[in-house]
Amino acid sequence: MGFLPRTDLALEERESRGSADLEGVRFLERDISGYRVSEVIIENEIGSQALCKPAGRYITIELDRLIRREDSAFEDGARALASLLSDLLPENGPVLIAGLGNPAITPDAVGHIAAKNALVTLHLIDAPGGVFSDLRSVACVEPGVLGTTGIESVEVVRAVAEKIRPAAVIAVDALASRRAERLCRTVQITDTGIVPGSGVGNARKELSANTLGVPVIAVGVPTVVDAATLAASLAEDCGARLDEDRLRSAGGGLIVTPRDIDSKVADISKLVGYGIDLALQPSLSVSDLDMLI
Amino acid sequence: MGFLPRTDLALEERESRGSADLEGVRFLERDISGYRVSEVIIENEIGSQALCKPAGRYITIELDRLIRREDSAFEDGARALASLLSDLLPENGPVLIAGLGNPAITPDAVGHIAAKNALVTLHLIDAPGGVFSDLRSVACVEPGVLGTTGIESVEVVRAVAEKIRPAAVIAVDALASRRAERLCRTVQITDTGIVPGSGVGNARKELSANTLGVPVIAVGVPTVVDAATLAASLAEDCGARLDEDRLRSAGGGLIVTPRDIDSKVADISKLVGYGIDLALQPSLSVSDLDMLI
Amino acid sequence: MGFLPRTDLALEERESRGSADLEGVRFLERDISGYRVSEVIIENEIGSQALCKPAGRYITIELDRLIRREDSAFEDGARALASLLSDLLPENGPVLIAGLGNPAITPDAVGHIAAKNALVTLHLIDAPGGVFSDLRSVACVEPGVLGTTGIESVEVVRAVAEKIRPAAVIAVDALASRRAERLCRTVQITDTGIVPGSGVGNARKELSANTLGVPVIAVGVPTVVDAATLAASLAEDCGARLDEDRLRSAGGGLIVTPRDIDSKVADISKLVGYGIDLALQPSLSVSDLDMLI
Amino acid sequence: MGFLPRTDLALEERESRGSADLEGVRFLERDISGYRVSEVIIENEIGSQALCKPAGRYITIELDRLIRREDSAFEDGARALASLLSDLLPENGPVLIAGLGNPAITPDAVGHIAAKNALVTLHLIDAPGGVFSDLRSVACVEPGVLGTTGIESVEVVRAVAEKIRPAAVIAVDALASRRAERLCRTVQITDTGIVPGSGVGNARKELSANTLGVPVIAVGVPTVVDAATLAASLAEDCGARLDEDRLRSAGGGLIVTPRDIDSKVADISKLVGYGIDLALQPSLSVSDLDMLI
Repeated sequence: MGFLPRTDLALEERESRGSADLEGVRFLERDISGYRVSEVIIENEIGSQALCKPAGRYITIELDRLIRREDSAFEDGARALASLLSDLLPENGPVLIAGLGNPAITPDAVGHIAAKNALVTLHLIDAPGGVFSDLRSVACVEPGVLGTTGIESVEVVRAVAEKIRPAAVIAVDALASRRAERLCRTVQITDTGIVPGSGVGNARKELSANTLGVPVIAVGVPTVVDAATLAASLAEDCGARLDEDRLRSAGGGLIVTPRDIDSKVADISKLVGYGIDLALQPSLSVSDLDMLI
Repeated sequence: MGFLPRTDLALEERESRGSADLEGVRFLERDISGYRVSEVIIENEIGSQALCKPAGRYITIELDRLIRREDSAFEDGARALASLLSDLLPENGPVLIAGLGNPAITPDAVGHIAAKNALVTLHLIDAPGGVFSDLRSVACVEPGVLGTTGIESVEVVRAVAEKIRPAAVIAVDALASRRAERLCRTVQITDTGIVPGSGVGNARKELSANTLGVPVIAVGVPTVVDAATLAASLAEDCGARLDEDRLRSAGGGLIVTPRDIDSKVADISKLVGYGIDLALQPSLSVSDLDMLI
Repeated sequence: MGFLPRTDLALEERESRGSADLEGVRFLERDISGYRVSEVIIENEIGSQALCKPAGRYITIELDRLIRREDSAFEDGARALASLLSDLLPENGPVLIAGLGNPAITPDAVGHIAAKNALVTLHLIDAPGGVFSDLRSVACVEPGVLGTTGIESVEVVRAVAEKIRPAAVIAVDALASRRAERLCRTVQITDTGIVPGSGVGNARKELSANTLGVPVIAVGVPTVVDAATLAASLAEDCGARLDEDRLRSAGGGLIVTPRDIDSKVADISKLVGYGIDLALQPSLSVSDLDMLI
Repeated sequence: MGFLPRTDLALEERESRGSADLEGVRFLERDISGYRVSEVIIENEIGSQALCKPAGRYITIELDRLIRREDSAFEDGARALASLLSDLLPENGPVLIAGLGNPAITPDAVGHIAAKNALVTLHLIDAPGGVFSDLRSVACVEPGVLGTTGIESVEVVRAVAEKIRPAAVIAVDALASRRAERLCRTVQITDTGIVPGSGVGNARKELSANTLGVPVIAVGVPTVVDAATLAASLAEDCGARLDEDRLRSAGGGLIVTPRDIDSKVADISKLVGYGIDLALQPSLSVSDLDMLI
């Protein structure tokens, strides 16, 4: 088998298998407010093995209008994201948002910036006067990363979830993509949770319904391409085929990002935060959130 | 009773009672590497009521040499802090550092900056080759604040502590002082833990041996004076006595800080982080930490 | 004479002289979109000596609706500011925006954050296709502060102004107020330029029409109260009168700010930036700016 | 001619011409405190055309010990850099440091962070008591970038230089490299100044002795590899040769950086700042600078 560079997007795993139908995998496309939405549904174990991902729904929205900074692109994008999330969330009950990743590394700050834009209400629900009693109860945790806490981030999320017993967890994180043109302009939403290490039986790190007992919706934004992946992909576009292992060792530890990664990550992560807020509090508008956050 | 402005320092509570001996309270002074160290020991319930603080040891170190940026002041200060902490810590067993406060508010970022300077080892102890097996096991958590997480910070610390079962917790936070000259140049260490809300039976928020079952060492740095407190204190120095309630309402929500609070908080919080590291890993030096952190 | 604490606001200088009319000083009040606008006009040398400020117009807008985060408060505030600025600016010709102050000190970062929100066009005017040829030519400079550059900030602005020969300069800076309730919710606009050191003949530091030969509009936001000033002001509210010199020495170097100064400075400084943009490019809207900046 | 990917390092231009001697180019190597130092000397127009760079000295120091965080690596590196700079600087007279680049884009923040670590003295030299009269006079300017100021950065530097009339200018900036292993671990020092746009007659942007009348020493740190450059270079290592134009269009706007670019840029830029300080103030030590900056 040829070189299969790394991606966290089910859409890209499917693309790399060619255009033919795959057993156990369904694929749908639609449009919401001018944004293209694709959905890869892995229906069973056969599909799961074909795409190396757990069975479940993987929905991808491509926010090209946001990148072109079109009028009302932010509001439309946040609303589109909210409607996709609403489909996957239970109708009622408290929700825990987990902002994953390392805020000190720009392309890994998606979870942190989304968390800063989350409307947190758990502590307000019982406030006197009942002014907040119509809001859904939402809490947020930023577990940090292993290198700076000494603890697996999923351990921290699980510990907090056991305290506040949410009806669902929404986990936000940065992803790796295979194609540079998707960086900071795509969001993947899945109901399979987060399984770092490709889900190869590493239950210790798994953040999913299996280990938590409640649905775990993962929201991810691709912000980097592995440098070896990019080289292979550019080479392939040029008709060459490169040796995988030599590439890996030559490009190790390097990442490819857009030049203006700082502002691009800030923009799309805020949109993710607002999209989650609108999904959880359907009575609010973007300008309400501008005032409350 | 006259105006008793707010302070988190036991030393200042004692000062405000005059120079006479208080029943149930002992007071010691000494010098470490040119830094003045005071200790208020609240021995029993009588002392506790006199100073409105739980019984225990409250040690204050005044880092004047750091402010004057004297040669080797940082290293001496970190070592002095380490020796004071070592006295209060159990000799063995894993330690959980909790960086409290809100990093988005400069004077409240002490816990966050100290946490960034913590040497975290829990995930390395079992690394192959055993190169880290001589280090004490240390983890770190930053729970965030209620307003941005919806969860009491002590709840998050407790949840994590229940997972990793440390032998002790070190909680770092910003404090309020009554005297401006102590801001960003004083550290208080206590074995009584952290009891927001003055310990008046608010066990939900208490982070202490009572609720955790292991020693909780609190390390605090005063970074703000309440504006009403400062006005009262300046007025008193000028021989006037102001009406407490009118002051409170006039100065509500305002804080007094040094003009260069950003760099002062960064400097002393790094020193606190290094002091904790040296207490937990006595085989390391400041220049080792410079390389490892 | 009693204690006259420091302020940069002409409005407060006038308030401290009581409600009687002052020779050489006129005072007007009006309302724009629900925001209160006051104007102190110092007409001649007599008025100038009475208020210790150069002759000219000092317009103050109080942005209470912004603080209460009312709907459309940001857009209304930016538009109100734009209309006040338009009155003082020449109708045509390039404009140089100078973002003064020290971005590393939160309450002094007003000029920096406003500059980040300035729509800069000078380099685009001659772009091929002429798509930007309808925009007014705008450049921006951040001169830094003496302590970190070694050069007076006004020297840097003057050097740049001599290169690009603007028709007017807009200088944005943080101010000191005497009353805490004005912090981060008031903007003062004046056509007298900036005269650090109270204009006492220190022409080296003066940034004004005198030294530049073009109008200098200063836009200032009060973000701090001097601690001694606050103590005196709170004491006066309580009926006491404090000794000025003792206060000064006791409170030296301390400042009073709102607790959430970081977010408040960010909010009002962005509004100032947008207000300037709308004044200079009347064909644009706030949502245009959201897309362009 | 094959693919010649972009680099700002004279060393890499020479490498790409093979190991043979080039007319008009000399090459020297030595070692300072364990750091490898290479020097490419372009002696005349023939050498200049061969390497596409102006005639002059290009000195490269590889700071591998810093990356490995060896003991005293920072101090040794700063001293080595200082000795290299001292060779190129005039012995006396004021110096202007120019921190170039865009601090809002992490890999472009080298100039800004170096400037923050510059010891600025111009405003202190005439202080009463003469305590600073032994120090060399140093000023610093950060001109910003065209996109956020509307003005060429070299225009701002030139305007300030005309005011303070330095004996030399030191310009610090980020560079592009061709080889990933040099990122954030190499410093290039040259006496040819900075000529963005490859010096192809764009005198408007040139910051050099030609336009300023005083020596301009440029200090640069490679922090990015162009993505197309990296792909070509990895492909070449794997024995393939890619089509230049297709690569350029596929990888446009993307950059390759180390994953931990934020901390790596901070570390090496501080070292550059300290190296400049030690070159300009030979009576000071690194721990003096720790106290003064």
